[in-house]
Amino acid sequence: MCFQPFCKLVGKTTLIEVMETICKGWFSDVNERMWPGQAISLQVDEVLFHEKSDYQDVMVMKTKSYGNVLALDGAIQATEKDEFAYQEMCTFLPLNSHPNPEKVLVIGGGDGGVVREVVKHPKVKRVVLCEIDQMVIDVCKKHMPSMAVGFSHPNLEVNVGDGFKYMQEHTNEFDVIITDSSDPENSEGPAPAACLFQAEYYKLIKNTLREGGIACSQGETIWYDLELISELKKACKEIFPVVDYAYVSIPTYIGGQIGFILNSLNKETNFRKPITRFTDEECEKMNLKYYYPEIHEAAFCLPRFARKALS
Amino acid sequence: MCFQPFCKLVGKTTLIEVMETICKGWFSDVNERMWPGQAISLQVDEVLFHEKSDYQDVMVMKTKSYGNVLALDGAIQATEKDEFAYQEMCTFLPLNSHPNPEKVLVIGGGDGGVVREVVKHPKVKRVVLCEIDQMVIDVCKKHMPSMAVGFSHPNLEVNVGDGFKYMQEHTNEFDVIITDSSDPENSEGPAPAACLFQAEYYKLIKNTLREGGIACSQGETIWYDLELISELKKACKEIFPVVDYAYVSIPTYIGGQIGFILNSLNKETNFRKPITRFTDEECEKMNLKYYYPEIHEAAFCLPRFARKALS
Repeated sequence: MCFQPFCKLVGKTTLIEVMETICKGWFSDVNERMWPGQAISLQVDEVLFHEKSDYQDVMVMKTKSYGNVLALDGAIQATEKDEFAYQEMCTFLPLNSHPNPEKVLVIGGGDGGVVREVVKHPKVKRVVLCEIDQMVIDVCKKHMPSMAVGFSHPNLEVNVGDGFKYMQEHTNEFDVIITDSSDPENSEGPAPAACLFQAEYYKLIKNTLREGGIACSQGETIWYDLELISELKKACKEIFPVVDYAYVSIPTYIGGQIGFILNSLNKETNFRKPITRFTDEECEKMNLKYYYPEIHEAAFCLPRFARKALS
Repeated sequence: MCFQPFCKLVGKTTLIEVMETICKGWFSDVNERMWPGQAISLQVDEVLFHEKSDYQDVMVMKTKSYGNVLALDGAIQATEKDEFAYQEMCTFLPLNSHPNPEKVLVIGGGDGGVVREVVKHPKVKRVVLCEIDQMVIDVCKKHMPSMAVGFSHPNLEVNVGDGFKYMQEHTNEFDVIITDSSDPENSEGPAPAACLFQAEYYKLIKNTLREGGIACSQGETIWYDLELISELKKACKEIFPVVDYAYVSIPTYIGGQIGFILNSLNKETNFRKPITRFTDEECEKMNLKYYYPEIHEAAFCLPRFARKALS
């Protein structure tokens, strides 16, 4: 018995081929451009949803060990078992570094997970979610209800459309902007999210933030993308007085972790020392499974090779 | 095109089947008992060595993205790309928590990686490596020379034999004991290393340590083995006055991280504050790519769900 189909699959990785991997029980996340020579695989009990939207391939699978899993263009976005890690850190790293995060914009995040966390924060009064793909919202409401629960909050406004356009029309308006995006490249080349990893996007964020505003964006992985992260950090330093990088451990992203680029317009911001420190009781009440003040601080402590490359 | 062979493979996972996965270019690390429903795969350019020793299946592969890779009984043990993370933390977490780690015993670690790090420590005068499998040592000397370089150090004594027996014959002798083992279970049931995850083993460690001695053992992963870790930690607390748990990020272990159980006979030990703090110049001179004092401290900061379970 040989491994040929998998080998062929990874050699080609057209979307159709990736999708076909699930037909016999396993789904594989492969990306020849971003993490060549490595794959992560989950055993699938049932495909709950699979359609092509105007923007991407949208799939939800029921898996053996990770609950329901959302994949976009063949890449794992969130699993019910471990999504809390990403959502909590993506949310509370920026929110707790801002003295008064009243108004929050989420770009992407159509699964609802980040919004679910944002509305928990005691200082947040209003959240706008700007997701380009209605299908992602709809499918998560149906198949990933533990993430999509945030959509029912009265402080939330959902805007289905282009985040770039929304920000161009809303300058000087938000205290915190969270970019919850997919990766800049898939196996075939630049992906829809590529524009979110460029200086132009960060300039737009700057204009959309209020004075002293803070931004947090999905920032890839030190084990594979150190050059990309380094370039992005340098570009951000031309735009924001304070720039930092933190990470979260999460088993179903390749390499077992993913990072965040943090930017602040307030030159006094120290991302490594949260201004708002939740007590253990508050963490418990907010049902936090990953985040607490000490892990906020520890998240900036990178392996020495990465610290050197990003310093 | 379907994924059938991989599916079948994971359903059965006899050793032969696992080995056969490499014939068409990919190797998969699967373990139906310890992490069911998930697999990590590496693309293989060439199999450099593959034999069955008296104890286990030993294989070294040249991979596309991770350099040469050692697998024992079908499980990834070390890759040239990321092994430094594990070796450095496994070594300096215990050594820098001991005021004077002159004499160090390494149980397992036949690849030489831990020994390579131990001999760098300025206070270490003597190291004994106790590895049961001569083939692992030989094959790593030949195919993983960047790890096996530690074997040529004059302060090292290599003892090929059973670690249990060695410790029974050497009581009250070592300042630090590092257990660099494989996992307690493979897909077929208990693995050779199972005995290293039991209270009896830790009692033996206690007797082999000198006064104030410290032990560090491979401690599996919070994302899959929290119950095992919790049980082990409880057992250790019956034996040692100070017990703690830390982790290291490493992409090629399932879940992207692995932990360490740390035990001390000195009730004043605080593993979270290293006694010996390497300067940046010292780290550079020792060619440390992961470890430095701040990441020593941060390594104990677990996600909230794990902190609760292990408190």
